[in-house]
Amino acid sequence: MRLDEIVARFGGELIGDGQLAIQQVATLERAGPTEITFLANPKYREKLGTTNAGAVILAPEMAKESPTACIVSANPYLYFARVAQCLNPAAALATGIHPSATVESDIPATACVAAGAYIGPRALIGERARIGPGCVIGAGAELGADALLHANVTIYAGCKIGARVIIHSGAVIGADGFGFARQQEGDDAGAWLKIPQIGRVLIGADVEIGANTTIDRGALDDTVIEDGVKFDNQIQVGHNVRIGAHSALAGCVGIAGSATLGRRCTVGGGAVILGHLKIADDVNISAGTLVAKSIPKAGNYTGALPFLEHSQWLKNFAHLRQLDTMADRIRALEAQVKMLATMPGKPEDEF
Amino acid sequence: MRLDEIVARFGGELIGDGQLAIQQVATLERAGPTEITFLANPKYREKLGTTNAGAVILAPEMAKESPTACIVSANPYLYFARVAQCLNPAAALATGIHPSATVESDIPATACVAAGAYIGPRALIGERARIGPGCVIGAGAELGADALLHANVTIYAGCKIGARVIIHSGAVIGADGFGFARQQEGDDAGAWLKIPQIGRVLIGADVEIGANTTIDRGALDDTVIEDGVKFDNQIQVGHNVRIGAHSALAGCVGIAGSATLGRRCTVGGGAVILGHLKIADDVNISAGTLVAKSIPKAGNYTGALPFLEHSQWLKNFAHLRQLDTMADRIRALEAQVKMLATMPGKPEDEF
Amino acid sequence: MRLDEIVARFGGELIGDGQLAIQQVATLERAGPTEITFLANPKYREKLGTTNAGAVILAPEMAKESPTACIVSANPYLYFARVAQCLNPAAALATGIHPSATVESDIPATACVAAGAYIGPRALIGERARIGPGCVIGAGAELGADALLHANVTIYAGCKIGARVIIHSGAVIGADGFGFARQQEGDDAGAWLKIPQIGRVLIGADVEIGANTTIDRGALDDTVIEDGVKFDNQIQVGHNVRIGAHSALAGCVGIAGSATLGRRCTVGGGAVILGHLKIADDVNISAGTLVAKSIPKAGNYTGALPFLEHSQWLKNFAHLRQLDTMADRIRALEAQVKMLATMPGKPEDEF
Repeated sequence: MRLDEIVARFGGELIGDGQLAIQQVATLERAGPTEITFLANPKYREKLGTTNAGAVILAPEMAKESPTACIVSANPYLYFARVAQCLNPAAALATGIHPSATVESDIPATACVAAGAYIGPRALIGERARIGPGCVIGAGAELGADALLHANVTIYAGCKIGARVIIHSGAVIGADGFGFARQQEGDDAGAWLKIPQIGRVLIGADVEIGANTTIDRGALDDTVIEDGVKFDNQIQVGHNVRIGAHSALAGCVGIAGSATLGRRCTVGGGAVILGHLKIADDVNISAGTLVAKSIPKAGNYTGALPFLEHSQWLKNFAHLRQLDTMADRIRALEAQVKMLATMPGKPEDEF
Repeated sequence: MRLDEIVARFGGELIGDGQLAIQQVATLERAGPTEITFLANPKYREKLGTTNAGAVILAPEMAKESPTACIVSANPYLYFARVAQCLNPAAALATGIHPSATVESDIPATACVAAGAYIGPRALIGERARIGPGCVIGAGAELGADALLHANVTIYAGCKIGARVIIHSGAVIGADGFGFARQQEGDDAGAWLKIPQIGRVLIGADVEIGANTTIDRGALDDTVIEDGVKFDNQIQVGHNVRIGAHSALAGCVGIAGSATLGRRCTVGGGAVILGHLKIADDVNISAGTLVAKSIPKAGNYTGALPFLEHSQWLKNFAHLRQLDTMADRIRALEAQVKMLATMPGKPEDEF
Repeated sequence: MRLDEIVARFGGELIGDGQLAIQQVATLERAGPTEITFLANPKYREKLGTTNAGAVILAPEMAKESPTACIVSANPYLYFARVAQCLNPAAALATGIHPSATVESDIPATACVAAGAYIGPRALIGERARIGPGCVIGAGAELGADALLHANVTIYAGCKIGARVIIHSGAVIGADGFGFARQQEGDDAGAWLKIPQIGRVLIGADVEIGANTTIDRGALDDTVIEDGVKFDNQIQVGHNVRIGAHSALAGCVGIAGSATLGRRCTVGGGAVILGHLKIADDVNISAGTLVAKSIPKAGNYTGALPFLEHSQWLKNFAHLRQLDTMADRIRALEAQVKMLATMPGKPEDEF
């Protein structure tokens, strides 16, 4: 693809030779003369001078520093994403059902079911859907057009997956939520009685779900993931959670049952959101934060702990157990100092 | 099922028309005239007035507020669980071995082995056990009567799973524990030598294991999960852990090797219990807590961090690194104030 | 294997009858007369006196206390690892391709492909590699000699796995990294555009990867795991991470994209390392620590929170939100006390 073709298709201002043919995307450090790269974070500016890339996508204020052809865009990373998608179209998979697959529903001729996959009865599979090796799709589940399940994905019965959804290996959609009632008395006191989980998981269009992420089915109502939500790997979503459109969740996040996350939220790696909370639209939660109450207002929220060299940590963090005592001692000191300052002959006004 | 039949079977006091036929369970908000719901948490009391449910299960003190038929029970949620189970019996699965499964052991005629599953030699499979598509059961493993493995579960060789155990997709039982000895000297200094993990996982009856949860086999002795323990999704249990009967662990919990958890404990989401610790019976650990020493006494324990709006967090949490200095400064102030107060002419007694 | 044979092979000093035949390894508590055990941690010293083991591997300073034959070694645990490996050789697996597997590449006659596995085209499989039931290996992937994939492992296209690597069930190697560019304006404002992930995962020799661990492929360059790294279960490794040789990571660790971990590092359970950070060689990070900035120097680092009985936690940790105010109050007190102390007639020098 030539640079002028790229600009014709995606806009931006081209500075340099439009005839240059670009074959692939690459990083500033590794890109060669037939590759295009990008500079989005000013922090990596010094790498620009030494790049061997054929062309660089960058912001207007960096254009002068480019040692090579460049495409100027207000959002270089987004522009780069478009070019990268264009140069790396999804591999065309064979269509049809592999002889080792077991399929108990009708499948469109344009869809692909790979080796060893299993599709139960009454499933609805969309046009051009691709179902990887070893996937299991339960009875009555629905998979939208152009959806892509990588290998070894499990979809439980009755769940609905939207168009163009991508699900990575090991993800499990629709397992039972964690719902049990506790016996209070009798021989079984303390034992748990299972609550049947009869809701479903409903996943909108253009969602991506990372490897080994789990999204539980609802207890009575459904668990709902709106359009365009992006999940990284190893995320756990409890029953009856609702996640608003275009939110993005980094790896290892946990969202407990019946929590509601707004639209366009971001959640950093390893953060945990407790059950039944409501998080507003456009909330950004930092990595490692435990969200233990609702957040009614957009903004950035953090509860992460700084780390220290271990001996420093021992010295400092032991005081966490005495914070209340420290606060009491400060209060007592304030009272004493006030008294000292107001004794006859003390110029109280000075304070 | 009619209301009078429900009360005849499960007890409780019926207020209203016993002839009403109930078809399903539902939430207070969504339930319709042929559905039964429950009110367990007084917080949701205001939803009671507007429910369209055919009947509500609730506590004695709420009975007067019910706009519709109700069943009065001291533990409405437990009662609801019983009704829900009754109205939602486990789907009757086909018995027999799917032709695409590979089975190298004898299987009872009442059991079911689904498409693509693999069962190794010398396995013992109980009556009416159901083994989902793509499951793998290693050589010599045992699966109790009425156990249910959802799709793509892996059981390593030699592990024993009790009666009526439910295991969700992607769970892995019996992988090697994390045991390595470090080379201290020579060319390989720093390299790790694997300790063969020759113990097993022994899982009692009525345990439920969530999606993508992993329970490692013991190094020398066994990892033991007692009866009735409930695991949510994505939990990691290290080698030689022992978990007491009827404990319940929420999603993303990690329990390091050789830790012992008592009976009827609860562990909140994302909590971590370090290795070799002993946790007493009836201990409740809050979400996000890192348990770094043993807990010899029943009770509730917490080590979670509050979160703040990000700029507030920056301002407040930076002081964590200076807590020791803050404590020193308070001590110094106390000494100074004491000296000021005891100087000639100062009425020390006032403090 | 006789004790004198063990010492002849692995060194150390034998005290006792060299003719004793040892059949298995076991713990101090459980070992019987034909079993060998070890004592590495002086904390368990008191168990030595009552052991029924045939022999004990222990350090020189403990040799006198042994009630039975012993092998004296400077590093008893490492010595034990060697003996344990010797007594527990890997099970000899059948070679060849199971008829239910689907294999689209050439496989060496010494390799084993178990039931239901799938190997795509152009894969390179090493001599004696063992591929468990239900594994999926993508097109063009490479698996080194003597590598062992337990059941239901997924390797995406193009990834390279070194010799003698062990991967446990449910692990996913090479899923797409979490890379998206955000639309800033227009109807799609807030929506995410996928960045194709065209890098690979390159895994060195002698690496072990725990159950349900996920290692993402690189965005543009590769994700690299050097020789001898050991991963526990449920670890998440983001795109373009690099992990130095002989590092060891405990369960539930998360490493965000483009982070670099040095050689011989250890990371405790549930710790999180944020993206783009650089961690030096020989860094030890404690369990539960969130690493939010680079660590340029070897050492031990911790950021974990102590836990308390819940009511104590409530009382103490609420002050975390007022730490900045507490610091201000201490500063004000210091100013006041200084002023009081320096007023005419006050002996300032005393402080």
